[in-house]
Amino acid sequence: MDQIRNVIVGPCGDSAFVKPRRLTFEQNGRKRQWDYIIMHDSVSILLLNTTRQAFILVKQLRPVLFPYLHGDEIPSLLNDKDAQPRRELPMEIANNAITYELCSGIVDKDKSLVKIAQDEILEECGYFIPEDKIHRITSGRRVGTSGCKQTYFYAECTDDMIVSSGGGVEAEGEMIDVYYLPIDEAREFIFDDSLIKPAGLIMAFLWFFQYSPNLNGINDFVNAKNK
Amino acid sequence: MDQIRNVIVGPCGDSAFVKPRRLTFEQNGRKRQWDYIIMHDSVSILLLNTTRQAFILVKQLRPVLFPYLHGDEIPSLLNDKDAQPRRELPMEIANNAITYELCSGIVDKDKSLVKIAQDEILEECGYFIPEDKIHRITSGRRVGTSGCKQTYFYAECTDDMIVSSGGGVEAEGEMIDVYYLPIDEAREFIFDDSLIKPAGLIMAFLWFFQYSPNLNGINDFVNAKNK
Repeated sequence: MDQIRNVIVGPCGDSAFVKPRRLTFEQNGRKRQWDYIIMHDSVSILLLNTTRQAFILVKQLRPVLFPYLHGDEIPSLLNDKDAQPRRELPMEIANNAITYELCSGIVDKDKSLVKIAQDEILEECGYFIPEDKIHRITSGRRVGTSGCKQTYFYAECTDDMIVSSGGGVEAEGEMIDVYYLPIDEAREFIFDDSLIKPAGLIMAFLWFFQYSPNLNGINDFVNAKNK
Repeated sequence: MDQIRNVIVGPCGDSAFVKPRRLTFEQNGRKRQWDYIIMHDSVSILLLNTTRQAFILVKQLRPVLFPYLHGDEIPSLLNDKDAQPRRELPMEIANNAITYELCSGIVDKDKSLVKIAQDEILEECGYFIPEDKIHRITSGRRVGTSGCKQTYFYAECTDDMIVSSGGGVEAEGEMIDVYYLPIDEAREFIFDDSLIKPAGLIMAFLWFFQYSPNLNGINDFVNAKNK
């Protein structure tokens, strides 16, 4: 386990990732405003390795979770604008800040969504999957403090397609573990609240159980195991 | 349709809703930082009116979508920090900024999640549903620019439980339409990309198709219609 030390929360200043904006407008003659942040659209891919009969997820430390998991601190962080609370979090907080996610990436290049998905699969998980094997599932949008669009894909692969160890782009600070989730543990996994995961991941798995092509008898296998 | 005019995007200033923070920490001796926004946890409820054989959703104008749907503007908004672009959006942009969402609310009171869910169902949709009829489905977390937790519920109701017209709290600027989605249109609805909705809504519907209790023959009905 990583050693996390010297966690400090303070004002954000100019940020490459969090860009707050205020939108003002008139609705039926009434003045309104809406504060939001500009966020990039993203792609996420549910990956199934048929050789291993396992889904491929990415597991990583997500620092944004520190203050949230240390729940008692949120009210004071919210109220104290210039707060510089200095706190050495207990190790179990860092251990709990590990997430399980679909292989994902932001849309910040002038490429097709499926090409960006293909690149992310390679970078994070180490597989080269032909574009025509990457199937679009659906898309969702945030609607509150951001309006970015998330597009979901599904792809199957085999051990033959492994070309690197994955793990993300170290130069961008990514430290990602490739995590294999056996098919017959997937239903229990998505409803296990002790494992931190986005709702979009649960959506993709529920889609798989109902809609994925019945290749190699996989769905029969899942259904038999989970009845 | 509402008339939207005089849409302006500018710097955010001090906001009650978007609170940017910077987290700094050491990971294995290496200094890192993470910019994020503090957001409240939330609850969302998939509601089924068995009298009408229809799901109950909320439909509303989400101003945050204006700049996103007006896609060409995002790069210039991102680059120009003090930008005050003044632009009268064409009406079709406002028309497209309508979302379909689960009845939802933020967790900003010292009440149980199920109680907050009950209150939101009443405020937004006008139904009083006993707490013991509101079933927890699962939860998901954001993992990027926020770490807030979203908890999903499912509840069935009847026309007998209608106590008001819903529509949200006008004093809080909420202008919500209660939207009835017939059960047999739900599968087509969740995969229709022209309708804007969060991934969590799709997740809840996919959960329903597989896991909801088979009350009143509803699932048999759905399965027969959608095969």
